[in-house]
Amino acid sequence: MNKELSSVKALTFDVFGTVVDWRSSVIKELNELAEVKGLSADWDSFADKWRGGYAPSMDKVRKGELTWKNIDELHRMVLDRLLDEFNITELSEQEKIHLNKAWHRLAPWPDSVKGLTKLKQKFTIATLSNGNISLLANMAKHAGLPWDVILSSELAKHYKTDKEVYLTALSLLDLEPGEVMMCAAHQDDLLAATALGLKTAYISRPLEFGPDKQNDATDDMPFNIIANDILDLALQLGA
Amino acid sequence: MNKELSSVKALTFDVFGTVVDWRSSVIKELNELAEVKGLSADWDSFADKWRGGYAPSMDKVRKGELTWKNIDELHRMVLDRLLDEFNITELSEQEKIHLNKAWHRLAPWPDSVKGLTKLKQKFTIATLSNGNISLLANMAKHAGLPWDVILSSELAKHYKTDKEVYLTALSLLDLEPGEVMMCAAHQDDLLAATALGLKTAYISRPLEFGPDKQNDATDDMPFNIIANDILDLALQLGA
Repeated sequence: MNKELSSVKALTFDVFGTVVDWRSSVIKELNELAEVKGLSADWDSFADKWRGGYAPSMDKVRKGELTWKNIDELHRMVLDRLLDEFNITELSEQEKIHLNKAWHRLAPWPDSVKGLTKLKQKFTIATLSNGNISLLANMAKHAGLPWDVILSSELAKHYKTDKEVYLTALSLLDLEPGEVMMCAAHQDDLLAATALGLKTAYISRPLEFGPDKQNDATDDMPFNIIANDILDLALQLGA
Repeated sequence: MNKELSSVKALTFDVFGTVVDWRSSVIKELNELAEVKGLSADWDSFADKWRGGYAPSMDKVRKGELTWKNIDELHRMVLDRLLDEFNITELSEQEKIHLNKAWHRLAPWPDSVKGLTKLKQKFTIATLSNGNISLLANMAKHAGLPWDVILSSELAKHYKTDKEVYLTALSLLDLEPGEVMMCAAHQDDLLAATALGLKTAYISRPLEFGPDKQNDATDDMPFNIIANDILDLALQLGA
């Protein structure tokens, strides 16, 4: 292991895309519901638009156009808009609530549970996700993710990549920036962490956006570790 | 299981005294340090005064006489006063920092890990402690406590029994008061939770304050469950 990483005591993980495969999971739930209810639509596109609607919603919160809303609430706002757009009128309120919680039931990538379990022997492992605490807690129970601590943008009432999110995590973990490594499949998250002095690990997830789309990996990424997956991260960190 | 408890989805636990045996653990650390440093004092009394100093410190935070300070900071304030009172001048700053973190290394009661592991199969199990997040996370790793979520007064910037602590937990868990059971060895904690509509379980810990002192159990406690320990709680909840 790189000597400059010997100070790392805790790893904070982005979750959607980095630890769990949101796209396949959401498409699967949409198809299952469609079968039960006799609906038909391009569910891949529905899932992509659902996920895609979330960044602009967070931006509205950031700019103060929306008061603080957690991800469950933002997901629901986008869902209602998409049901309209796709002209789906057959769902009861209970079914909409259940569907919205598909994001609590996302499946881990095949390496996630094993990799985190290894890392947990050596480090404190925490979420640091834009997902709300109850979403992350339900997901952890559903997927068997062995977090030591569940941290969330919800605790800072700011969304990543606002600096308040990372600073709140450092304060709650009572660690210095150099003692924490942010682990994510997204460069913007890691660049924000780097700017505050955190260590960083890029986890490559080439299938996050589906087989036909690129992830954001580039050749010259300025991070401490570039890992193929979470097991590879554990290997590189000697865990 | 009592029918009115079938709505319970999450259990929130007081920690000091309820899940871990703070007194024996702190006395043991004080004795070990005394041996290394050649100190002598009544360490039982030192431990009791250390714990005893914490309620008045929290009251100062409540009344606004102190700005928000977490338990690590309050423990350190009391420690510095006691080192003075006991005329102990031989500790370096590093030794004081380490000693103050004795509260991160408390040992669980013999039933705690087994009982929580059973309860975790059926419920979301969370801390709801006046201890800060890093203290609770370090303690969980040290003692093997299998929490799903670590919640703390620190997230509300209020100490129990202020209502903000319980309301913050309900909000972060996204549950109704009747879906959460507060579990504690202290009546005041449970009475505050009851007043907000939470379910309650009293866990009897007759040795919390040492063999010569009573705990606060009485004959007519108005709680949903009275349990001998956490394994008994699991049994009574059908977990």
